[in-house]
Amino acid sequence: MSTKRNLILSVNAGSSSLKISLYTAGDGDGDGDGREPVRLLLTSSISNISAPPAKFSFKVVQGTAKDDQPRDVHDHASAFAHFLACLGREAEIDRAEISCVCHRVVHGGDYTDPVLINDEAYTHIERLSDLAPLHNGAALAVIKTCLAQLPDARSIAFFDTAFHRSIPPYISSFALDQKIAKERGLKKYGFHGLSYSFILREVSHFLEKPASSLNLILLHLGSGASACCIRHGQSLDTSMGLTPLDGLPGATRSGALDPSLIFHYTNTAGRMSHQRGSAVQLHVTQAEHILNTQAGWKALAGTTDFAAITSRRDAGGDAGADLAFELFADRVLNFVGAYHLKLGGAVDALVFAGGLGERSAALRAFIGERVECLGYARVDPGRNGAVDATEGVVVDLTETEAGAPEKRQQQRVLVCRTDEQLEMARQCSLGSM
Amino acid sequence: MSTKRNLILSVNAGSSSLKISLYTAGDGDGDGDGREPVRLLLTSSISNISAPPAKFSFKVVQGTAKDDQPRDVHDHASAFAHFLACLGREAEIDRAEISCVCHRVVHGGDYTDPVLINDEAYTHIERLSDLAPLHNGAALAVIKTCLAQLPDARSIAFFDTAFHRSIPPYISSFALDQKIAKERGLKKYGFHGLSYSFILREVSHFLEKPASSLNLILLHLGSGASACCIRHGQSLDTSMGLTPLDGLPGATRSGALDPSLIFHYTNTAGRMSHQRGSAVQLHVTQAEHILNTQAGWKALAGTTDFAAITSRRDAGGDAGADLAFELFADRVLNFVGAYHLKLGGAVDALVFAGGLGERSAALRAFIGERVECLGYARVDPGRNGAVDATEGVVVDLTETEAGAPEKRQQQRVLVCRTDEQLEMARQCSLGSM
Repeated sequence: MSTKRNLILSVNAGSSSLKISLYTAGDGDGDGDGREPVRLLLTSSISNISAPPAKFSFKVVQGTAKDDQPRDVHDHASAFAHFLACLGREAEIDRAEISCVCHRVVHGGDYTDPVLINDEAYTHIERLSDLAPLHNGAALAVIKTCLAQLPDARSIAFFDTAFHRSIPPYISSFALDQKIAKERGLKKYGFHGLSYSFILREVSHFLEKPASSLNLILLHLGSGASACCIRHGQSLDTSMGLTPLDGLPGATRSGALDPSLIFHYTNTAGRMSHQRGSAVQLHVTQAEHILNTQAGWKALAGTTDFAAITSRRDAGGDAGADLAFELFADRVLNFVGAYHLKLGGAVDALVFAGGLGERSAALRAFIGERVECLGYARVDPGRNGAVDATEGVVVDLTETEAGAPEKRQQQRVLVCRTDEQLEMARQCSLGSM
Repeated sequence: MSTKRNLILSVNAGSSSLKISLYTAGDGDGDGDGREPVRLLLTSSISNISAPPAKFSFKVVQGTAKDDQPRDVHDHASAFAHFLACLGREAEIDRAEISCVCHRVVHGGDYTDPVLINDEAYTHIERLSDLAPLHNGAALAVIKTCLAQLPDARSIAFFDTAFHRSIPPYISSFALDQKIAKERGLKKYGFHGLSYSFILREVSHFLEKPASSLNLILLHLGSGASACCIRHGQSLDTSMGLTPLDGLPGATRSGALDPSLIFHYTNTAGRMSHQRGSAVQLHVTQAEHILNTQAGWKALAGTTDFAAITSRRDAGGDAGADLAFELFADRVLNFVGAYHLKLGGAVDALVFAGGLGERSAALRAFIGERVECLGYARVDPGRNGAVDATEGVVVDLTETEAGAPEKRQQQRVLVCRTDEQLEMARQCSLGSM
């Protein structure tokens, strides 16, 4: 490895985890069809960062793999430092070859494009961290470490909100005083934008139609879940709002609920009450903490593992599992119905992505069956059950017959294996920042 | 008027208004087809109660009408007393003939049926007033006056929440700790139930189908607005939640918004912030006050008058009016799309009701055009524009041709002139309480 390469590192920091992918760019050896501008070299993930010992894994493509529980990892900064040390030791990669580091930042405020991180940008993103401390804090810590440890690489922030800049004001505004709303930035920002950008591109390739011609309903369903309505290749609406709290429930997140509910949840009266004496003096951080970490299907079924919920539901007689599954599917379907109408019924495909979207055949079957009435092609149980064993970034779940092009006009139901790190590396390599 | 009649008084108390209708029951002289068990004798309304001078109107059916600004009205109790005095003086009706007084109570908690008000029930409803002070307070004041001034009449509380008792737990539950939720009664109650009950009955009569066979999407759109999904004649879902704040925006009400938003709206930082120092110590009453009275289309367009917004929009170049109209229509359509899918596309009719639903041809045209893609029959501009001049409780907006029964299979778009007071009087007369 003596020739200096042009490596791109993509870093995706969660509240207690770090996912890292390393790519080589510009050497023309992307995927087979020459469509991919970058090629994956290795992946690494570190979880349990805030509950040590952390779990570390490191896997070189067609090469060595390593899993351990390093004692020196206790926060995001030390996790990233551990990864860098491993890079030289396990993969013999010189960190000086990394020309670019891409950081996923959840809340980008009014940023509509990726940003090269200089002092000014760092200060601005730090200020955004006050806006979304639960979501931006980890990324900020990694950016800081990165600037110190990889001083010659360009660090770029990619924002999950940027994809939704196309949402028109009549959808992104809340019905509030617009002067106050504008001053304070109170509007629907939307999230999961890197994932939606990836899915849009892949589905466009799969359907052999230009992205700008596509109307899609995208479901990024994971421990954080959202839906996105794509018209002519742009975000028209999405379920998350000012923060990722709005919209669909998640593993530990409530999703949308009555705006006055949190006050009744936390008062000391033990029931709904407006009595001043029983009111808790509630701070935004506390409200967000409860609704982001003590709710969702964990609160309904006692687990964050949706696969376990599905199994318990199949076994029968489990009210908590039934409630969690049916409540979640109901809320997802509410957005599917709303977006289908918003697109005037002219939808090219409904697409499942994210941890649940890609892995829960039960959830896809349940939703697929219910959308048939809107003209979506039937989800084939065989195809749906075999997604894990099917090659390709996009998998078609619906019955389409060869030689029957008229059937291909029917609205498809797809699965897309989304990849936020690859999306950042692509955008970085293509110079779209 | 020497024979003692069986009169039913229906009282509908709003935050600053009182609407009263008097009916005669059981004399077999209801409407022409014998379907109506009660007959309207007179109506009265008192508005501006909390901003004196109040406006009083009193209208005997095919008889005298009176409008004035009485100086002795300064709260709901004195407003009701003023009405009772007028009853004898203007209509020569002996209050002893009133056998039954029906009170609309917005929030009924876990009451699933109307309740005869005795001491125990009064205490329970008083307790509910703590639960929903903005909505139940006025009704409680009138009930108290009524018990004192009409001691021989039976007073019955009818709850707007009761109609929604059929909503299944996977729809009515929030994704929160269910133990806390159950203890505190934190769930979707739904509102506008008397109106939905009236509409269901009238649409069943109009379509000549039993109510229990009907799937409907009902829109009660007024200064408070909600949507309701009816399956097999029962409420399956509705847009309002724990309180009437959730769901659609209204004249001064925000509707659904990110659960953390109110904290950012009220802090002293002048922008979104989690800094402890800038947090306002927010109480539920203050949050509800802001979101119920300082939001909605008043905040977007400076007026609570939706007709004025529509006119300004038609005149062009009015960003505030455009935003208010389009935002409201967008949110309504979200529920229409969601409920259409929830009913598997098997919908008998989409029904407009409430102040805007019955009067805004522009809003009906806008929504009607967008739902055509789901198979709803086209809203005829002539019929839509002539609703005000069309007789009948239910008006069909769609083009249906006589002699073409297959067209009648298409999903209809209707207007229903809803009447919560009549609904209470009917239920009272039919003894369904």
